[in-house]
Amino acid sequence: MSLQFQILGTRNRARLGRLSTPHGEIDTPVFMPVGTVASVKGVPQDILEELGVQILLGNTYHLYLRPGVEQVRRVGGLQNFMAWPHPILTDSGGFQVFSLNELRKVTEEGVTFRSHLDGSSHFFSPESSMEAQIGIGADIIMAFDECTEYPADAARVRKSMEMTLRWAERSKKYFEEHKHEVPWKSRDRKPETGNSNSDQALFGIVQGGMDQSLRKESAERTIEIDFSGYAIGGLSVGEPRALTQEVVESTLEHLPADKPRYLMGVGTPEEIVQYAWMGVDMMDCVLPTRAARHGLLFTSEGKVSIKQARYASDESALDPNCGCRACLRYSRAYLRHLYASNEVLAQVLNTVHNLTYYLDTMMRVRHSIRLEEGVRVPSVGRAKP
Amino acid sequence: MSLQFQILGTRNRARLGRLSTPHGEIDTPVFMPVGTVASVKGVPQDILEELGVQILLGNTYHLYLRPGVEQVRRVGGLQNFMAWPHPILTDSGGFQVFSLNELRKVTEEGVTFRSHLDGSSHFFSPESSMEAQIGIGADIIMAFDECTEYPADAARVRKSMEMTLRWAERSKKYFEEHKHEVPWKSRDRKPETGNSNSDQALFGIVQGGMDQSLRKESAERTIEIDFSGYAIGGLSVGEPRALTQEVVESTLEHLPADKPRYLMGVGTPEEIVQYAWMGVDMMDCVLPTRAARHGLLFTSEGKVSIKQARYASDESALDPNCGCRACLRYSRAYLRHLYASNEVLAQVLNTVHNLTYYLDTMMRVRHSIRLEEGVRVPSVGRAKP
Repeated sequence: MSLQFQILGTRNRARLGRLSTPHGEIDTPVFMPVGTVASVKGVPQDILEELGVQILLGNTYHLYLRPGVEQVRRVGGLQNFMAWPHPILTDSGGFQVFSLNELRKVTEEGVTFRSHLDGSSHFFSPESSMEAQIGIGADIIMAFDECTEYPADAARVRKSMEMTLRWAERSKKYFEEHKHEVPWKSRDRKPETGNSNSDQALFGIVQGGMDQSLRKESAERTIEIDFSGYAIGGLSVGEPRALTQEVVESTLEHLPADKPRYLMGVGTPEEIVQYAWMGVDMMDCVLPTRAARHGLLFTSEGKVSIKQARYASDESALDPNCGCRACLRYSRAYLRHLYASNEVLAQVLNTVHNLTYYLDTMMRVRHSIRLEEGVRVPSVGRAKP
Repeated sequence: MSLQFQILGTRNRARLGRLSTPHGEIDTPVFMPVGTVASVKGVPQDILEELGVQILLGNTYHLYLRPGVEQVRRVGGLQNFMAWPHPILTDSGGFQVFSLNELRKVTEEGVTFRSHLDGSSHFFSPESSMEAQIGIGADIIMAFDECTEYPADAARVRKSMEMTLRWAERSKKYFEEHKHEVPWKSRDRKPETGNSNSDQALFGIVQGGMDQSLRKESAERTIEIDFSGYAIGGLSVGEPRALTQEVVESTLEHLPADKPRYLMGVGTPEEIVQYAWMGVDMMDCVLPTRAARHGLLFTSEGKVSIKQARYASDESALDPNCGCRACLRYSRAYLRHLYASNEVLAQVLNTVHNLTYYLDTMMRVRHSIRLEEGVRVPSVGRAKP
């Protein structure tokens, strides 16, 4: 049994859905915070639960290097390892190899790359990425793809897309033959929540650069392979934002209505709202967490660069319309001081705030779809410890 | 009206007490976590409350440099600035100048030193230290003293002790003339808890190096100046631990029974227990927080260096007898991974654990004194938000 996806209501192109995974249910459209190395940098898991995080994203590339797949497998999978008994999605490692490795070497077989930690040489193929992702044991895993660079000429984009399609088939084949090896399928490792009889779900990734006809072809041929959900990859790689939107909009038309649609690595608070209304069900982005570490905070009154001296005596809350721990208790003056003094608490509080802003934004989108459509289904609500 | 100190019971030399400050009451013996620059590194204030922290220590030297005394005064004092509406104690800056500045210049007037942040030149005297500490507005502040280096010859120790006594008189004089200037005495800055009519309390500091007769003389002459409490300073400066204990033990005999006794900058978990049983009422130390940042964790089963590879697959809790957030939720394997991966969450969780260990240790000491003495007075309990 694989992933279940119920569409509870639609409003124009937007969809209100419920995704059932082995470790619990998720209300969509959903924003997935990034927990690269088995931690959302600086935020304890119980606070993530408090914020209403429903699903985390882990990076296979990072986890493969440290602590290593066998390490995670041995303790029953990533959910057990990081004490997050809720849904997790892992990427395939392809994008990280693309973005962190200037010396990578791509062949039909796979990608040779060097660790950013110690320079050691490693190899990812569709098969080894699946092996790693099955060992890590996320609820949703991704086919191994090549993220085409931008800009790229037409021949290069087609060639890359064709290889991604062949890799998608190899990913699917390996996954079907090995999915029973996921660590939490063994008797003593059953998930505490969700349906322990269900399998991991494998998503395919649509590539095709910025060419709408190639995107259409990539979508159609990826769907033929048959995945539990479909992602739009290869965007946010340096192209203008308007172009990203065009490509997303046109690609979405070719994705099946009854399967979850995941837009990878996007975006600003405004963008995640736009894409949700276009019909995207899942999004992830490092922006809220990374910006927090640089003192850039999203508020209902616009962006705040908390390092600025103008906030040194500002006793007001960061965002008067926010109910997070940072806004309820501390002043802008204090947050500015923490940042200026390079105190770790700055990262903790700033990350809590930015994640709250993103999660609340997405919750409001779900609320709007529900209200406007008159959907009378209660939400899954927040993850419970 | 100054600090109130009630002794509720004694057991041999140990004392169970209650200290009433403008921002709340404190059960003694008490351990005071160090929040150097207005933050206990990595731990949000609501978690400190949860841990049962009753009073924090702030470092005047650091706060004076950043964010600056005027900044703190302008927002109503340190309690308001850092959203900690509970008791705070500040040191005088003397020890920090001593330990962080190799190029300091000490004269009868005071100490010239360079900022460790930007090399700028600054000057602390008894008067300017009082001015800074009144502006910061802690509930308990410390006389400006010279911390004698170790080892030092007899003439040097006496000379330093005599100067500290003259500085104590100057500190007291300035304090009495200016204590009404504390920021939370103004009408719109009344503390939310505690007794807003009371003043800051000034403690004197006993010096005298490792010489017991000089310690006795320093104690007697400091008591003559008349302070609200007495600290033992100038220890933990490199001397053998056995010597520290001897000096503390002999100095305590010369301190008045009805005033709080504060042993500065001490110690290991075993030591804070020993000193509490000797009759010390207050202690502070960077050890639990600093050790946490280096992966050294105190547990009921001994010290754990969490970075060790032996913990990589250890699914047990860090300390099975601890009820902190780190021990209740996470495995040693995960804590080891966070530390090895240099994740900020390692610092957060390790600090929460070590502080819990120190605070629980001190709570058990209070419980033992209460039980053995049959004292029937309920404790103040944890600080409330």
